[in-house]
Amino acid sequence: MIAQHLAVVGLGLIGGSVARAARAAGIAGQITGFDVDARQREQALELGVVDAAPDTVGPAVTGADLVVLAVPVLETGLALDTLRGALAPDAVLTDVGSTKSSVIAIVKHTFRELPPNFVPAHPIAGTEKTGVAASDAGLFRNRHVIITPHEQMSPAAAARVEALWEAFGATVERMTPEHHDEIFAATSHLPHVLSFTLVDMLARMSSSAELFNYAAGGFRDFTRIAGSSPKMWHDIVRANRSALVPLIDRYMVSLKQMRHAIATDDPIHVLEVFTRARNAREHYEADQQRRSAASEDGTGGGAA
Amino acid sequence: MIAQHLAVVGLGLIGGSVARAARAAGIAGQITGFDVDARQREQALELGVVDAAPDTVGPAVTGADLVVLAVPVLETGLALDTLRGALAPDAVLTDVGSTKSSVIAIVKHTFRELPPNFVPAHPIAGTEKTGVAASDAGLFRNRHVIITPHEQMSPAAAARVEALWEAFGATVERMTPEHHDEIFAATSHLPHVLSFTLVDMLARMSSSAELFNYAAGGFRDFTRIAGSSPKMWHDIVRANRSALVPLIDRYMVSLKQMRHAIATDDPIHVLEVFTRARNAREHYEADQQRRSAASEDGTGGGAA
Repeated sequence: MIAQHLAVVGLGLIGGSVARAARAAGIAGQITGFDVDARQREQALELGVVDAAPDTVGPAVTGADLVVLAVPVLETGLALDTLRGALAPDAVLTDVGSTKSSVIAIVKHTFRELPPNFVPAHPIAGTEKTGVAASDAGLFRNRHVIITPHEQMSPAAAARVEALWEAFGATVERMTPEHHDEIFAATSHLPHVLSFTLVDMLARMSSSAELFNYAAGGFRDFTRIAGSSPKMWHDIVRANRSALVPLIDRYMVSLKQMRHAIATDDPIHVLEVFTRARNAREHYEADQQRRSAASEDGTGGGAA
Repeated sequence: MIAQHLAVVGLGLIGGSVARAARAAGIAGQITGFDVDARQREQALELGVVDAAPDTVGPAVTGADLVVLAVPVLETGLALDTLRGALAPDAVLTDVGSTKSSVIAIVKHTFRELPPNFVPAHPIAGTEKTGVAASDAGLFRNRHVIITPHEQMSPAAAARVEALWEAFGATVERMTPEHHDEIFAATSHLPHVLSFTLVDMLARMSSSAELFNYAAGGFRDFTRIAGSSPKMWHDIVRANRSALVPLIDRYMVSLKQMRHAIATDDPIHVLEVFTRARNAREHYEADQQRRSAASEDGTGGGAA
């Protein structure tokens, strides 16, 4: 039993999946949840994702010894303001936010100093689907979870959060919040910005209905992430703008070079970029397939 | 029987799939093929994709009444130069190129004028995989094939090419080459450029191994098209540069606005773009799912 009473604040895809995974792993006595959206609370109850989902956050976290915050990152401050009065002094508080420096800053601002029992974490899992109905007990299996320690963090609190994610089948690693934010700006936040921007541009063109009618499988894959929650991603890009903006700039330089090569019919640059990209993508794909084969073997996967 | 003797020039993913589909549909007497790559020819023979795969293109097309060109678009001229001496005067010649204005111009240049038996076509199908080993008789089922007529095109030749694609389970539509090239610049060529450019940029970063290690499912989908054939896509973006470059410019304007909104912490623009994109993507996804449900029902799918 990792938690006598687990409270999940934010019953979306990730929060719902945390509750379901905790139930499936049998690591929590009682599981309560809260969401500002009454429909999510009702669905979470109907689906048996949580044992109780009170109308306000206070009763949901009262008595909990482990509280998982799973709200859009810029809602962290508001969520903490409303729940901190009900938080037990020795409860472990953790989060699932995709940006870490900003969440740590918000927590520090709310509590004046960083509570030793606060463990900043980010499970690298998710789909473009949203809401508790899409949640899945297996979402974190063979995934990475990154903990970004702060100086005040209690080793005992961190160990409990690690145990939680390991019970869900994930591999836990540690890095600094700044390093985390740079990595995910590059491989997650930037691709989301590029995909949302493309789909919006096409949707605003007068021929958009026809364009989408002929769009094939490659387009469907490329734009899948543009089906993700606008509010969640709005929060992420704003919260991580200091890491993201330099990468957008770097991308614009690369795209401008590519545009110039295409416009001036320079075959060398185009073929070089495409070939390097294809090679890197094949290497990555082979690695992904090795991992999923390893996970099907039950030998674990994840980063060695 | 649509062809007594079908010849496929270029035994890659698309050419191989044309040969396999023709065999499966029983619409060709004999099927011969040619590829400049000896390995592709050997594999095509071993896999039974073609009945014969001579070392040179002449014997492969000699006696054929239907010739399908399935080479990278900028190889069209070279392929035609080497095969035209062996082409029967009444043979129907068609292609599968992703760019139509350029292919039509190359054919015109090769033959001095556009042959009435030349039918420019583009099946909207494919995957990021390459080579005859990845070819699939079902690749064109419930897909669009676009024919872009030219003024000299013979109705009888067009009817045979239409019959070919319909026998493979595809829906055939017609539009002008210019309109075709604009549509696919937006929904196919631009996304490929954006994806190749991103993967190359990340691959050139000093932290690239770590970046790819943590890249999750969203990244995998977004970059799947960057695993496509560099040569094929190099040809496409060069051949369609007059339609593509203005769209890259338009995208750079949109991305610059997004960059500005993120950098200046303007929540309205970011949330508006993401929300419009998500709504358009959901609409598109629902449409795709309706089509694939219809195709599983055997009621056909495709654009109504």
